[in-house]
Amino acid sequence: MAIWPDEDSKSKRLYERGRKVYPGGITRLVPWLEPFPVYTKFGKGAYVTDVDGTARLDLLNNFASLIHGHCHPAIIDAVSKQLVLGTAFTNPTEVEIELAELLCDRIESAENVRFSNSGSEAVMSAIKAARAYTGRPAIVKVEGGYHGSYDYAEVSLDTPRDQFTSPPKSVGYAVGVPDRLLEDVYVIPFNDPETAANVIRAHKDRIGAILLDAAPSYLGFTHVTPEFAAKLRDLATEIGAVFILDEVITFRLDHGGAQKKFGVKPDLTVLGKIIGGGFPVGALVGSKEVMKVFDHHAGRPLVPWSGTFSANPITMVAGKATLDLLTPELIAHINALGDRARAGLTAAFASSGFPGQVTGVGSMFKIITHQRPVYDYRSQTHTAAESAAMVELQRMLVLKGFHVSGAGMAFLSTAMVAEDIDKFCAAAEESLCQLPHPASGE
Amino acid sequence: MAIWPDEDSKSKRLYERGRKVYPGGITRLVPWLEPFPVYTKFGKGAYVTDVDGTARLDLLNNFASLIHGHCHPAIIDAVSKQLVLGTAFTNPTEVEIELAELLCDRIESAENVRFSNSGSEAVMSAIKAARAYTGRPAIVKVEGGYHGSYDYAEVSLDTPRDQFTSPPKSVGYAVGVPDRLLEDVYVIPFNDPETAANVIRAHKDRIGAILLDAAPSYLGFTHVTPEFAAKLRDLATEIGAVFILDEVITFRLDHGGAQKKFGVKPDLTVLGKIIGGGFPVGALVGSKEVMKVFDHHAGRPLVPWSGTFSANPITMVAGKATLDLLTPELIAHINALGDRARAGLTAAFASSGFPGQVTGVGSMFKIITHQRPVYDYRSQTHTAAESAAMVELQRMLVLKGFHVSGAGMAFLSTAMVAEDIDKFCAAAEESLCQLPHPASGE
Ligand SMILES: Cc1ncc(COP(=O)(O)O)c(C=O)c1O
Ligand SMILES: Cc1ncc(COP(=O)(O)O)c(C=O)c1O
Repeated sequence: MAIWPDEDSKSKRLYERGRKVYPGGITRLVPWLEPFPVYTKFGKGAYVTDVDGTARLDLLNNFASLIHGHCHPAIIDAVSKQLVLGTAFTNPTEVEIELAELLCDRIESAENVRFSNSGSEAVMSAIKAARAYTGRPAIVKVEGGYHGSYDYAEVSLDTPRDQFTSPPKSVGYAVGVPDRLLEDVYVIPFNDPETAANVIRAHKDRIGAILLDAAPSYLGFTHVTPEFAAKLRDLATEIGAVFILDEVITFRLDHGGAQKKFGVKPDLTVLGKIIGGGFPVGALVGSKEVMKVFDHHAGRPLVPWSGTFSANPITMVAGKATLDLLTPELIAHINALGDRARAGLTAAFASSGFPGQVTGVGSMFKIITHQRPVYDYRSQTHTAAESAAMVELQRMLVLKGFHVSGAGMAFLSTAMVAEDIDKFCAAAEESLCQLPHPASGE
Repeated sequence: MAIWPDEDSKSKRLYERGRKVYPGGITRLVPWLEPFPVYTKFGKGAYVTDVDGTARLDLLNNFASLIHGHCHPAIIDAVSKQLVLGTAFTNPTEVEIELAELLCDRIESAENVRFSNSGSEAVMSAIKAARAYTGRPAIVKVEGGYHGSYDYAEVSLDTPRDQFTSPPKSVGYAVGVPDRLLEDVYVIPFNDPETAANVIRAHKDRIGAILLDAAPSYLGFTHVTPEFAAKLRDLATEIGAVFILDEVITFRLDHGGAQKKFGVKPDLTVLGKIIGGGFPVGALVGSKEVMKVFDHHAGRPLVPWSGTFSANPITMVAGKATLDLLTPELIAHINALGDRARAGLTAAFASSGFPGQVTGVGSMFKIITHQRPVYDYRSQTHTAAESAAMVELQRMLVLKGFHVSGAGMAFLSTAMVAEDIDKFCAAAEESLCQLPHPASGE
């Protein structure tokens, strides 16, 4: 029987059809795999099975959005019940209140909520809120911080090495981003309080928001230092800007979110991924004081916000079922699996002799195919050869039955057990032994 | 038994809870109703039932997103089958290809597709694509045209009367929109080829995209004239800009979409709403030539595009089931219901003596509480008293068992029959008789 990436596999046939209707053959860039993607048939718990019948341990979980893996019975049950009541209404529902209450209960800085359909939309709503609240146009963000596709939040996401300046300049992500947009974004290096203070104070009358991810994926999930978190809080207060924490991925780290884990004190927090239980979602939560820009009671709100599918009841029931299941104990469990994976991979690197490392925190980790210390965007960047090695490692792991991203990222689910992790680490060790080692000095 | 808007209704109790967690008590602005919203319990076909047990004819269908009304068995069936296979995967699926193929089959200008999670995201992807393709930062849009929450596309959405200039100036929508952003948006009046030509030619080296809705909701669904459609096409070609048609709502008008119905020839088309079958969706379709900005085969794409939930299989199966059901005959049926509603409402205005009119095309209409001819944004704008009359009419209709929007909009579904429309028109007539008439000269 043909399997990926055989020429006569079903994945190949689907890819040939995909090429006719999609630029490059795919509609989302991130799942790309050479020579063509693995097409999914179904998922069950910790595993996904492709169209050719191969089951693999899913360490990606749709990029960190399925905290309980695939098809958790409680989530299927909740969604099935809602499905026969309706999937989308013009008017509000009780469950949209329930999920908002749950978020306000768990997240210390959350007094009010506004839903949207993606993390990208929620980031946009946060930036709009900050501009309206402060009357200032510009934002500050961290070099290499990924916050979705709103182009203000995409600035300097993948600055190439030959454009590194100090302080970092604003580099557009998509080609053609307006120059005027770049002028409204200031970029700072991660965990560098001094540069942050200099940049922010230099433009204090223009800056409405400071945007931070407490453990950015592109930075190997390096997490924020207490000093940096405190400094950004103080600077935001000092200049009168809104401090926005992006927890779209990191909310998973603690029952109270990343802000609890790392002691960050934001005004607004952006959520997404797991809070939708496997359905499209984004949310902005924060202080009543700032969130009142959305309020319509005094006439037209400063920021009118709707969205056709925002807070649709399917996403709401799935999100609520998901978070109800996600107890502190279960979070501790997957965080421990993360520790186990990091230990296993560290050992795999050591025994294979392949020069690399694993970074990360809690239930997320990143395989890095170099040994330089990773503490910000620039330090984690890979040479072309190092990136190619990671992609080759990903491919070997796919062939052995494991899905990680081409950048080496992985996000564990509560459907996994220690044995899954151990098998994965063993496969990684085997692969690292097979992977051509960079000859030193070559 | 208490019903909306009684103080002891269940809707009131939910609103009291909502006020604690949402700015203004709600998470989407549009469904607001004084003194508090009607909370939905379930929908079935053409009707929605609220938490107090009142069933109403749903003429909104989650703002035009449910073309078959609520809980169509074929859609529930398709979603139920997918639900047990998984709701979101990292890797692509067969059904995302099937829905893309279907869109390319039906829409003449669609060769390639890119999915996203909302109309707003899809508009953003279209504008990014145009900027990357042309290397130019600015866009042109129609005054009063609504295209979702991406702030470039929101410019001059609700320009107040005291800021009408000729040509229209760029007025921000959310408070705090950056001045630099406004400089990258040029605004033209609808169906005015001459002004369009002047504005577009004056800034031709800066304009990357011309964005049009063929029958904009804020303009009473006044539809594009053949002259205007042809002129924008010619101007886009002349200056080398990308012509983007927003069919998020208007795709419903014809089996080939609004471009078929009105003879528009876009390079890119934005879709949303009904193509997701009641689940969050957006899509960009267009020529291979422009869509190749998303292609990764020659290295990093000019516009990298992903989105955690883009093309998730639940949206895809629901969208495919929905569009498979939506035959040309069924479209003709709901368009005929639209004609029936417009005729009935025109008669209701006449017999009641209330000075108003109904506008619209196909299965969408708008009740307008003034009698001035409506042909663009400015001509459709209401005085404060006229807007208040519409809101009061909406309220009366809700009390009689019918949901229309506070701006008087309605979107019919295939679940409706002629009798539903007739009942609605009778209720509208009764309401218009009861509604305080503006005393002429008062
Ligand atoms: C930290 C962070 N913020 C925002 C987003 C955007 O979320 P979405 O893909 O739902 O638009 C992502 C997506 O990966 C993310 O990782
Ligand atoms: C014409 C048009 N374009 C775009 C949008 C935005 O779509 P969404 O609400 O899914 O973001 C809408 C929503 O009503 C619309 O009417």
